[in-house]
Amino acid sequence: MALPAPLAIPMGDPAGIGPEIIAKSWAVRTLRSLPPFALVGDVNAVTRVWSGPVEPVDSLDAAGAVFDRALPVLSIADAGAVTPGVPAVEGARAALHALERAIDLARAGTARALVTGPVSKAQLYGIGFNHPGQTEFVAERCGVAGEDAVMMLAGPTLRVVPITAHVPLAQVSSLLSIELIVAKGRATALGLTRDFGISGPRLAFAGFNPHAGESGAIGREDIDLIEPAVAQLRSEGIDATGPFAADTLFHARARAGYDAVLCCYHDQALVPIKTLHFDEGVNITLGLPIVRTSPDHGTAFGIAGKDQAHPGAMIAAIAMAGQAADRRARA
Amino acid sequence: MALPAPLAIPMGDPAGIGPEIIAKSWAVRTLRSLPPFALVGDVNAVTRVWSGPVEPVDSLDAAGAVFDRALPVLSIADAGAVTPGVPAVEGARAALHALERAIDLARAGTARALVTGPVSKAQLYGIGFNHPGQTEFVAERCGVAGEDAVMMLAGPTLRVVPITAHVPLAQVSSLLSIELIVAKGRATALGLTRDFGISGPRLAFAGFNPHAGESGAIGREDIDLIEPAVAQLRSEGIDATGPFAADTLFHARARAGYDAVLCCYHDQALVPIKTLHFDEGVNITLGLPIVRTSPDHGTAFGIAGKDQAHPGAMIAAIAMAGQAADRRARA
Repeated sequence: MALPAPLAIPMGDPAGIGPEIIAKSWAVRTLRSLPPFALVGDVNAVTRVWSGPVEPVDSLDAAGAVFDRALPVLSIADAGAVTPGVPAVEGARAALHALERAIDLARAGTARALVTGPVSKAQLYGIGFNHPGQTEFVAERCGVAGEDAVMMLAGPTLRVVPITAHVPLAQVSSLLSIELIVAKGRATALGLTRDFGISGPRLAFAGFNPHAGESGAIGREDIDLIEPAVAQLRSEGIDATGPFAADTLFHARARAGYDAVLCCYHDQALVPIKTLHFDEGVNITLGLPIVRTSPDHGTAFGIAGKDQAHPGAMIAAIAMAGQAADRRARA
Repeated sequence: MALPAPLAIPMGDPAGIGPEIIAKSWAVRTLRSLPPFALVGDVNAVTRVWSGPVEPVDSLDAAGAVFDRALPVLSIADAGAVTPGVPAVEGARAALHALERAIDLARAGTARALVTGPVSKAQLYGIGFNHPGQTEFVAERCGVAGEDAVMMLAGPTLRVVPITAHVPLAQVSSLLSIELIVAKGRATALGLTRDFGISGPRLAFAGFNPHAGESGAIGREDIDLIEPAVAQLRSEGIDATGPFAADTLFHARARAGYDAVLCCYHDQALVPIKTLHFDEGVNITLGLPIVRTSPDHGTAFGIAGKDQAHPGAMIAAIAMAGQAADRRARA
């Protein structure tokens, strides 16, 4: 039997913790039952910060046979003389090149899934990158409109989807619409079935205002926007409920009642998931033709190169990508 | 040696879970080392839902001697024929009367502290109550302006203060001001020292926008309002820091770095505390001449009278009130 295709993991910014946490994930591949993967990027970015076995490969196909004995590296980019913790233009260029190559490998099926290392948006903007983030870039390269690619944050006991994200909080009310909420709900339900194997997924919607507006006494958004969106989704056969008061929606007993929460804004989604699952949160993009996950944290330049980075979220991202790819292959 | 004065606990709405959780707290008084307290309200509200020992007392002074053998009840209100789970006008009147009497006892020093049972705001509004909640009512009866009374939610590993609370989220930006943030910061620092015994308390301020606005790229409130307020507090010698990105402010390692977080709006404060400490959250009002706490939950009419109510938050509220009163007595 042929080995399954490896996962492709573009290294992220070589001055960040990406190379280190990818290598540390390889080190626990057996203990954590991780699927075969290869780092895509610059081999020097790894050897600079890690003394374990590394083996350059010419193609992703070759990585599967190497994976047992060394971290396979598809070394296709030259990041130059990187100082960990000090981002530079050449590093950003190498990170972007690695990302592009890894997307192509995943789209071609040569890679079974894509797990992206953390990049610096500020650095990427400096070299002309003009997408809000990696998620939108990956979506565009896959031919998917940004609004149809849904960012979900997933931890061991909670999954959340922010309906709006990196926008000023005072603008969220005007950015929300019934159409947007319905579109995110549909894509989330589909993604939970396709990538998590949940049939008839239960979606809970967090209220926008305190106490979900108390029947309109504290703001109208819950009545005017979320209630009609939930009704629309239910009419389509999706198990959507809410809006619920956000403050009582995330404790352990409440979490047993749904498969994911759709939240109105960034912090409403990110506060509970990072409070509960800071070292193991995974960002998974639903709605793409490929499986794509990433650890739910940044480049952490402050601790790069110091052997202090916690690989928990990268390990979780690799495991989740492997499981989602398995489910799609069986479907 | 004279017994210390008991705590006064007005029963809350008699159709809610208040009487039951007060009685259940009495039942664990020894195990949990709770200070002596008396229920203030209608003795029938307790005996209707609880079969343990209850003993009416004529005055709070008499409660201390009774506390070892029975729940002392200062029965000064007649709630009429109460059906648990079905709030009624007579019950709301009795709840308000009990609250007023208990405040008077605490102000006079006859009660060492006030722990309020949960009331129904909707029911109170129906009988002419015109305060936003019990906190503002208690403040006014104590001669303290509403803005100087600070609501803090406290659990075993986190304390939060919402700077704004029951207002539409879209209005929060315009309701925040440097003056308001500074006033809440001052009162919080003072309260942490007076009621929690923390000298030089560390205050962390949560950012308003995602990522605390990323230097103004995602909204101006963090720069225009929170930064100057933090600078003002620091110039007064208060250990204030921030604004910090809210999503990375509440995980376990982050919580070790401060004594309380001041949050811009209701859900930013209430989501993390209720996610972490749903059954043990205490609402404590800082800035009053008396100690006042309450369990951080409502009347729970849906489970009233069914022996299903969890007394954890009431137990924590009683313990915290006793500790705060002890600290004030020693100061």
